[in-house]
Amino acid sequence: MLINDLPRYEILDEAALAELERGWRRIVSELGIEFLYPEALDYLRDAGQQVDGELVRFDPDWILEQVAKAPPEFDLQARNPERSVHIGGNHMVFSAVYGCPFVREGDERRDATYDDFQNLVKLAQSFPQLDSPGGTICEPNDRPLDSRHLDMVFALLTLSDKPFMGSVTSGPNAVDTIAMAEMVFGRESLEETPAIISLINVNSPLRYDDRMLSALVEYAKAGQATVITPFLLMGAMSPVSIPATLAQQVGEALAGIALVQTIRPGCPVVFGSFLSNTDMQSGSPSFGTPESATGLLCTGQMARHYGLPWRSGGMFTSSQTVDAQASYEALMTMMPTFLAGTNWVMHSAGWLESGLVSCYEKFIVDIEILRMLQEEFQPLEINEETLAFGAHEEVGAGGHFLGAAHTLERFRDCFYRPLLSSTENFERWKRLGGRDAAERAGEIWRQKLTEYEQPPLDGGVESQLAEYVSRRRTELGD
Amino acid sequence: MLINDLPRYEILDEAALAELERGWRRIVSELGIEFLYPEALDYLRDAGQQVDGELVRFDPDWILEQVAKAPPEFDLQARNPERSVHIGGNHMVFSAVYGCPFVREGDERRDATYDDFQNLVKLAQSFPQLDSPGGTICEPNDRPLDSRHLDMVFALLTLSDKPFMGSVTSGPNAVDTIAMAEMVFGRESLEETPAIISLINVNSPLRYDDRMLSALVEYAKAGQATVITPFLLMGAMSPVSIPATLAQQVGEALAGIALVQTIRPGCPVVFGSFLSNTDMQSGSPSFGTPESATGLLCTGQMARHYGLPWRSGGMFTSSQTVDAQASYEALMTMMPTFLAGTNWVMHSAGWLESGLVSCYEKFIVDIEILRMLQEEFQPLEINEETLAFGAHEEVGAGGHFLGAAHTLERFRDCFYRPLLSSTENFERWKRLGGRDAAERAGEIWRQKLTEYEQPPLDGGVESQLAEYVSRRRTELGD
Repeated sequence: MLINDLPRYEILDEAALAELERGWRRIVSELGIEFLYPEALDYLRDAGQQVDGELVRFDPDWILEQVAKAPPEFDLQARNPERSVHIGGNHMVFSAVYGCPFVREGDERRDATYDDFQNLVKLAQSFPQLDSPGGTICEPNDRPLDSRHLDMVFALLTLSDKPFMGSVTSGPNAVDTIAMAEMVFGRESLEETPAIISLINVNSPLRYDDRMLSALVEYAKAGQATVITPFLLMGAMSPVSIPATLAQQVGEALAGIALVQTIRPGCPVVFGSFLSNTDMQSGSPSFGTPESATGLLCTGQMARHYGLPWRSGGMFTSSQTVDAQASYEALMTMMPTFLAGTNWVMHSAGWLESGLVSCYEKFIVDIEILRMLQEEFQPLEINEETLAFGAHEEVGAGGHFLGAAHTLERFRDCFYRPLLSSTENFERWKRLGGRDAAERAGEIWRQKLTEYEQPPLDGGVESQLAEYVSRRRTELGD
Repeated sequence: MLINDLPRYEILDEAALAELERGWRRIVSELGIEFLYPEALDYLRDAGQQVDGELVRFDPDWILEQVAKAPPEFDLQARNPERSVHIGGNHMVFSAVYGCPFVREGDERRDATYDDFQNLVKLAQSFPQLDSPGGTICEPNDRPLDSRHLDMVFALLTLSDKPFMGSVTSGPNAVDTIAMAEMVFGRESLEETPAIISLINVNSPLRYDDRMLSALVEYAKAGQATVITPFLLMGAMSPVSIPATLAQQVGEALAGIALVQTIRPGCPVVFGSFLSNTDMQSGSPSFGTPESATGLLCTGQMARHYGLPWRSGGMFTSSQTVDAQASYEALMTMMPTFLAGTNWVMHSAGWLESGLVSCYEKFIVDIEILRMLQEEFQPLEINEETLAFGAHEEVGAGGHFLGAAHTLERFRDCFYRPLLSSTENFERWKRLGGRDAAERAGEIWRQKLTEYEQPPLDGGVESQLAEYVSRRRTELGD
């Protein structure tokens, strides 16, 4: 977890914020948002919102009243208390890639399996730059569809002791997640401080579907955190205009957050953003774009405006392989993520090919970028000691600092030390095989996996979890 | 030329700036700076500074008095007036890589030649994202050493109509550069508005050498712009501390700028920064580091504090090849370059292998990054039109915006269109050869070279330049 005490980079003035405010108010009140789940409609109807079939037209002031009940910051428990995180304020919490059906390992691209899932959770556990493995770090396609959420939660709770993300594929799957978390954390502790954070995507434009809503309702009832995220690729799920998309995003997110607060006032909730654009030439999603960076910076300002912790960012790319494009697109999003002080950052390692692929080598490239940024966003201390006049006196005009006493005392930790990047001269690099960053990344993740040690979990709890998985799998007919 | 009207990202408070001020004042007054050129020493002695052999101890207040005579902004002429640029304020001017002895083309790394020099100048001319080819875009090793500056200036003046950088290898070479520029611009015009900008590196720490000083003197006398740049790799040419290095940088740069103003008050001059660090494990220079990004942001704040246009940034990398490292390191420097609003940006395209290599494919990768950033750093207009409520009305809940009237009216220019990046789906990408960004870049630069057209230059002038080159080459014995 990084505490980012550097300034926020803000590009909207008051007039712009007021225009956007006008925009979302008009959308939620005049057009409304669909909620395809009866229980959600009941909550909103009972709270006095205008429900017409599945369409809800909102009073924007009522939305803001509900939003004000959400905590501006909250703690999220890990099963290892030292790895618990704080979400909000200047805190930045990083989790790995999420939701990919495929994996890439070297030159091989294939269906992701449960083995891959476990490997990637282990890698997320191994790097301190990641605060959480996230949840669906890849889709374990070799496990039965109806019960694979159990396998995933089991792996997340046993192979990692960092905070994790819950299943959102249905209400019952959310209930399973909560039940398993209770075995690890205890019901009372879970009730007091959330230990699950789950991604609720809006089926944009202007629609929440039944699967996501049923999961949202369960997590809200249990006081567990959700990340309410409009899923916006401009040109597909929103207009081809950043301001129009921002207004839509605020309207959609705040409406969902208001619903959470209606179910359980004070329940921790995160303002989510997933905002990029369609490549209008290919019709495909496009990542790491200038538009998405601008959208991200604006989103941060607006989330702060509404006093909410917020989610955005990620090491996004459309690239099919771990090349120059993969990393400039990743950093093109991740740098604004830091500048804007995003509180909950998903997809911080491993994302490739527009999110279709969890890639082992890209995971390592992303960890390197993350390490660099986490170092860069530390305040600079300027004082008599760091001005180091003595070093200048020692070396003098035309001298060299490499052998200076000032250097020898500090050389071990004076600068960032790369994990992946090479500064070797050409001859030496060539002699050692002339391997590019992707090839070197392949060695690093393999080495990390061999060094992995499972974080201890009370044996009784692990078998209790295993029994639960086994029983529920039978009940689900898998 | 980009006018960057977005906010500057500033991380230093007043107290920090005051500490740094204290730092450089102490360095220039107590330790002093060496000037290994008698004429420079004469100027400084005559101006009342304390000269002891080649060491000059400065009165910091005198330095600031001289610095105040430098224009905060100035115009730089191109031979095509439409390509003239303005240096300072919110303007950002981009030039290509500079000073590399080698080139890389695909998998081949070799000594750079005059053919390469011409090719790279043509590429710099071809991309509107670059405002200048710069100067020594690569070292034409197949031309005689004593006269190759003539070949370079000839190519820069004939193959491109953008502003160019002059030779700094000696005073006489600077005189040649000025003489050739006079043939193109006319003496009077050159005197009125500079048409040459030249890179004067400090031989850090605390030393200006005779070659650079003799060039500096000639350019200052002729009223041509120089970029006074301390060359700082922390751990080698400066202490292993960012604040100590910043203090040194300000002291070294302001002393040189004061010298220029002593020679010719009001002469355009740029506060230069080239600041990175040594990799303390390999002892090699390291680029795209967190430390260099922090240094860059601080440098911008200090240059503005002294009212000077400033230079920094570049697509730096230590990578030996066009891989993921090459592009994350490049962007790790270039993003702060934009955030800090750097006025004169060198090495904006083509840099590879810690500056030893001008790389054709990296040139294209860098142009893509530059295009993205130039798009990103445009103010966002938020108003009734961009809020596009009508688009939301048109599409409604659960709809799709791809075929919406709002989209169809705008799809051509609503989003950034990539030059190099691919969003193709995996199957199509694979079918088309599965080429990574570096391979695609190879096609792009070759295509650009075939499309290149030489910008017209009055025939008389071109042969006059050619005659000058021929005569001077004979005089120089090559």
